[in-house]
Amino acid sequence: MTNQLRVAVVGASGYTGGELLRLLSLHPQVTIGQVVASSKSEGLSVSSLLPNLTNIIDFQLSPLNIPALAKDVDLIFLSLPHTQSLHPVAEFLSHKKLVIDLSADYRLQDPQVYEQWYQTTHPYPDLLQQAAYGLPELHRSAIAKSQLVAVPGCYPTVAILQLAPFVAQRLIEPGSIIIDSKSGVSGAGRSPALGFHFPEAHEAIHAYKIGTHRHLPEIEQGLNSVAPTSGTDVSDPISLMFTPHLLPINRGILSTAYAKLQSNIDPSELENIYQHFYQDEPFIRVFPKAEAVNPRNLRGANFCDLSYTYTARTNHVISSGAIDNLVKGAAGQAIQCMNLMVGFPETLGLTSPGLFP
Amino acid sequence: MTNQLRVAVVGASGYTGGELLRLLSLHPQVTIGQVVASSKSEGLSVSSLLPNLTNIIDFQLSPLNIPALAKDVDLIFLSLPHTQSLHPVAEFLSHKKLVIDLSADYRLQDPQVYEQWYQTTHPYPDLLQQAAYGLPELHRSAIAKSQLVAVPGCYPTVAILQLAPFVAQRLIEPGSIIIDSKSGVSGAGRSPALGFHFPEAHEAIHAYKIGTHRHLPEIEQGLNSVAPTSGTDVSDPISLMFTPHLLPINRGILSTAYAKLQSNIDPSELENIYQHFYQDEPFIRVFPKAEAVNPRNLRGANFCDLSYTYTARTNHVISSGAIDNLVKGAAGQAIQCMNLMVGFPETLGLTSPGLFP
Amino acid sequence: MTNQLRVAVVGASGYTGGELLRLLSLHPQVTIGQVVASSKSEGLSVSSLLPNLTNIIDFQLSPLNIPALAKDVDLIFLSLPHTQSLHPVAEFLSHKKLVIDLSADYRLQDPQVYEQWYQTTHPYPDLLQQAAYGLPELHRSAIAKSQLVAVPGCYPTVAILQLAPFVAQRLIEPGSIIIDSKSGVSGAGRSPALGFHFPEAHEAIHAYKIGTHRHLPEIEQGLNSVAPTSGTDVSDPISLMFTPHLLPINRGILSTAYAKLQSNIDPSELENIYQHFYQDEPFIRVFPKAEAVNPRNLRGANFCDLSYTYTARTNHVISSGAIDNLVKGAAGQAIQCMNLMVGFPETLGLTSPGLFP
Amino acid sequence: MTNQLRVAVVGASGYTGGELLRLLSLHPQVTIGQVVASSKSEGLSVSSLLPNLTNIIDFQLSPLNIPALAKDVDLIFLSLPHTQSLHPVAEFLSHKKLVIDLSADYRLQDPQVYEQWYQTTHPYPDLLQQAAYGLPELHRSAIAKSQLVAVPGCYPTVAILQLAPFVAQRLIEPGSIIIDSKSGVSGAGRSPALGFHFPEAHEAIHAYKIGTHRHLPEIEQGLNSVAPTSGTDVSDPISLMFTPHLLPINRGILSTAYAKLQSNIDPSELENIYQHFYQDEPFIRVFPKAEAVNPRNLRGANFCDLSYTYTARTNHVISSGAIDNLVKGAAGQAIQCMNLMVGFPETLGLTSPGLFP
Repeated sequence: MTNQLRVAVVGASGYTGGELLRLLSLHPQVTIGQVVASSKSEGLSVSSLLPNLTNIIDFQLSPLNIPALAKDVDLIFLSLPHTQSLHPVAEFLSHKKLVIDLSADYRLQDPQVYEQWYQTTHPYPDLLQQAAYGLPELHRSAIAKSQLVAVPGCYPTVAILQLAPFVAQRLIEPGSIIIDSKSGVSGAGRSPALGFHFPEAHEAIHAYKIGTHRHLPEIEQGLNSVAPTSGTDVSDPISLMFTPHLLPINRGILSTAYAKLQSNIDPSELENIYQHFYQDEPFIRVFPKAEAVNPRNLRGANFCDLSYTYTARTNHVISSGAIDNLVKGAAGQAIQCMNLMVGFPETLGLTSPGLFP
Repeated sequence: MTNQLRVAVVGASGYTGGELLRLLSLHPQVTIGQVVASSKSEGLSVSSLLPNLTNIIDFQLSPLNIPALAKDVDLIFLSLPHTQSLHPVAEFLSHKKLVIDLSADYRLQDPQVYEQWYQTTHPYPDLLQQAAYGLPELHRSAIAKSQLVAVPGCYPTVAILQLAPFVAQRLIEPGSIIIDSKSGVSGAGRSPALGFHFPEAHEAIHAYKIGTHRHLPEIEQGLNSVAPTSGTDVSDPISLMFTPHLLPINRGILSTAYAKLQSNIDPSELENIYQHFYQDEPFIRVFPKAEAVNPRNLRGANFCDLSYTYTARTNHVISSGAIDNLVKGAAGQAIQCMNLMVGFPETLGLTSPGLFP
Repeated sequence: MTNQLRVAVVGASGYTGGELLRLLSLHPQVTIGQVVASSKSEGLSVSSLLPNLTNIIDFQLSPLNIPALAKDVDLIFLSLPHTQSLHPVAEFLSHKKLVIDLSADYRLQDPQVYEQWYQTTHPYPDLLQQAAYGLPELHRSAIAKSQLVAVPGCYPTVAILQLAPFVAQRLIEPGSIIIDSKSGVSGAGRSPALGFHFPEAHEAIHAYKIGTHRHLPEIEQGLNSVAPTSGTDVSDPISLMFTPHLLPINRGILSTAYAKLQSNIDPSELENIYQHFYQDEPFIRVFPKAEAVNPRNLRGANFCDLSYTYTARTNHVISSGAIDNLVKGAAGQAIQCMNLMVGFPETLGLTSPGLFP
Repeated sequence: MTNQLRVAVVGASGYTGGELLRLLSLHPQVTIGQVVASSKSEGLSVSSLLPNLTNIIDFQLSPLNIPALAKDVDLIFLSLPHTQSLHPVAEFLSHKKLVIDLSADYRLQDPQVYEQWYQTTHPYPDLLQQAAYGLPELHRSAIAKSQLVAVPGCYPTVAILQLAPFVAQRLIEPGSIIIDSKSGVSGAGRSPALGFHFPEAHEAIHAYKIGTHRHLPEIEQGLNSVAPTSGTDVSDPISLMFTPHLLPINRGILSTAYAKLQSNIDPSELENIYQHFYQDEPFIRVFPKAEAVNPRNLRGANFCDLSYTYTARTNHVISSGAIDNLVKGAAGQAIQCMNLMVGFPETLGLTSPGLFP
């Protein structure tokens, strides 16, 4: 095939890497050149790790050889644990390749914030400045122009999208935001551990890392980046609460976000503002009722489903947001960024509806 | 056996009625006299509705004949849909029987609030005044003295218990409370409906009835009832946000509650206050970390597990609370009230640990 | 678009109808002309019934008007409860339309068997003879030539496919077959009932309709149709045991089939025979180990995954087979038949891998 | 308390050990003297491993010191991985203690069979002869007299119980038995591994170890031990097929067993024989329909629920059997044996109904 984009996926043994391969296999303009997994998987077939891909993607896993890989492909997806992307990203960029990094390593623009939350000094603070934050609905043009895109975390994707209309229009008090999120277990990755052992995680739910989850500064950065920054509209910086919960489902996040309306806002205007904000977005669906926002409608799909409710009782808005954490929260969003970076239609290969039930 | 308390359970075809029977079968001082189900179940055996009770409780279901029942037993548990308890409660009381009502019909002390949320005029406003609110940890002596106890709803049980220490000591701003609760499907009852059809509710989560759930005024009433009411300490009435979510588990509620600390409170004192508040309570377990609060540790048990986290970032407390909605949130709490009403040890028959896993 | 096949889906409120729409939306050569649901859904949007299709298929549900529909489209999928397809099929055929029926109404070739198992006389016994049984791997040419295809039931699809190589080569004793199948709840349809109420079906499994399930005669017919019928190889008719079980998963069937090897068969030849039988089939994947056959690898995919084990202990073969009951067991198979009927490549629009996890 | 039996539980970090502690805490005549976990858990509290036991069993985990332990208690439960019980059992016996071993180490009476299936020579073949097989319904008097009881595996418990009436009366052909069993994940133990990682095991089912599972010889031994052994009734030894499946539930086994009726048996007599066989057994419940046999009715209970169906089509019986694998399949059965060994009523402490839902 001509005009096919040649890509590689580095880190294919996890759920995000597997989802990238699944989605790339559906993309009409992409050829998968190489699939790289951890050294212990070398020589295995893709389908030995990802049985759903049997007869779909049948080649062998390659070792990570950056110069060879850079010769073979046009664009590299990196789906590695945080801190492990730091150097490969830099190296691929030095080979003038497009890079889409799904780890947290290039998401936080401020190297000090990175150091504070990841306990390691960022070796490439200049690259942090070049990286676009891969949330197309809010940073489309930056992504299209960038050679390096850092795909947002799963929790930040939905939290930022659900609150952006309120923040961008300065409708809510910047210190009043509370985000109570619930994630399926695939969000925790594919490494077995007692907390994710079936009998421990099934019929169970708990909060974890309250106030200390690494997605917290990413959400704050994401919301601050859409807040008005000039004129008389300058807001105080956003400082929020974020409580993640582990949910006994495979895929999906439901995020419930609370914020106090500014006293000068007329709640009857909210609907127009919210609908208008996303009216041309192909992957955002705004529903009138929270009951309709449910990750079960999104399995395998790249949509972000949103809703909000206004309560006069306490003058708050309460937003429900849902995504498939592996698609719009990771691999699908990465491909949406890829489409922008290389000039494909933004939705190409991403229009499959979710599986229901 | 002598000194056995003779009880009846009215409304045994639902999950709460079934759980009452299960727990009563474990109680050493109780004899089940009659079991009443809906008219369509008349003549069936208990175990045809509740297969787990086969060979445990083997008698037939009776029709509801209040005078006959009142002659036969000392105490009646009513586990009926709301509004259906209104008249039976009054009638049993007129027969001088002890009554424990598990519906919402006698929980709200203000008949106008009842009318507002249940769209029906309460026919016995005077009885509302006599009814004790069946949360023993906060209303022990009233329950012990009362002839009628209204057992709290499942959401209010955990929400009130998790916030009571803060409210009673006036540590938090009364208008700042947000309660984000997640409940298993048994909380919705046993009547089949599309939303609870397995393929719709499995691998799913959604918010529902935001700001309109009938447990909201009950939580407010419960928290206002523990707030200081005299001296310079009088608080503003509590007005809160409550967002219930439907969770793909059978049993259990996890409630995450947020509140802003009063500016004059030293957060270092919270631990002492919280631990001290519940230190003698047999059914409250306070854990240092939110991760430990999980309904999976509570299946079948009458405990309420609690935790809180303080975050200096926004000067809030975030509390995690969990119960088994059918036990501490309904049938177990009802038996705890029964023990108090008749002078049994409060924990009698209720000390089984939860099933794990 | 030119050369698009115009189709209608009648019966879109159930899971099979919904899955047809999902898969048809991915098919490059199909245009959905009309979607018909039950009369009570008339005027609603497709997405009000099938929220995953929001922004994907946005038109209104039509009433069932057969002449109008026949004018509008080339091919009709009927996804109705059994007995309700009887007349519409005949009517659509009289309009010279291609018809793919997903009900049981045209699967059993013998009208007496139909009457025995469905308690109703078949009004169109002649059409039964014209209908092709829509299992392409075994009846490809008949499907390609037929105007009416009866898509197999979900259990029969996997049971017939897993045993066909043994039966076709007369390797097993025809009276020794036992099929122990386990199905997810979507196989029971979308009508709420107590047995499928989440708390009843979750954390549960049970056998049902042992020896009386209507898929039993269909499996026997399907296997008998591949058995040798001439020469010295004529087998006794197959008479088997079939035990379905309800499983707490949304989608998927796992079928474990047992059969005794004929005494003259050398088990070392089984592997060649089994692999060879399906070697060119695009939707059959044969795995060396039963552990690899798992419906979780097939969510949304049109594959049938198979394996078998030989045990010398009792000279039996034990086969594991898995499908997604809504795809290869219903909607996907229907589209595979459609592709054959109209001359599209058989795999067109059906090559998506399963979702994992 | 006087007359309390003092017991120890060795191996408390797994699910079986935890369930022993839960059930022992409900037993009115038992005092738990020591709880021993693996060396890495030493010094931890019981509830740090088993959070459901918080405030129920609050002491520290002890190291394994056999002489000290033997001084402290009357009876020891060993809940260790197979081969790890071999020496401790012998040592405790040498201290004249009663021993109940929940591992596989003393279940197989023939040391050669043990060696064949566990790949290790049994160091105490003489003790194998002394050990009673802890299935009270079939070996009650041997258990009562023995100093060492080997508690059956979870699969064998239900498979032997469901087939014993047929085998004991020589109703079925000994070579025709097929057992298709489905087990929840707790049966696999508490050690995290990829196959039991929540996203891999949820929404999934697969067969495993077909014909090679170590419970196979145990089931054969158990059934052969009830077969008639003298007169004209001597049967051929039982040789069967056993296919275990992993099921996405926490607790419970459903076992579906197939066997061909002897040609001289009148199927109309089956009901009497089956019901009669278990009519006085407190923990066996026989149901008329397979639909009623479901592990969801048995969570936490010591019952074994049974049913059978006769099919004239192939002259087979098909039996459904269910247990809670951790209770009747392990810890509950162990306590039932304990009651017999020390002369307590057999059902003491074991009469709790299952949790439903």
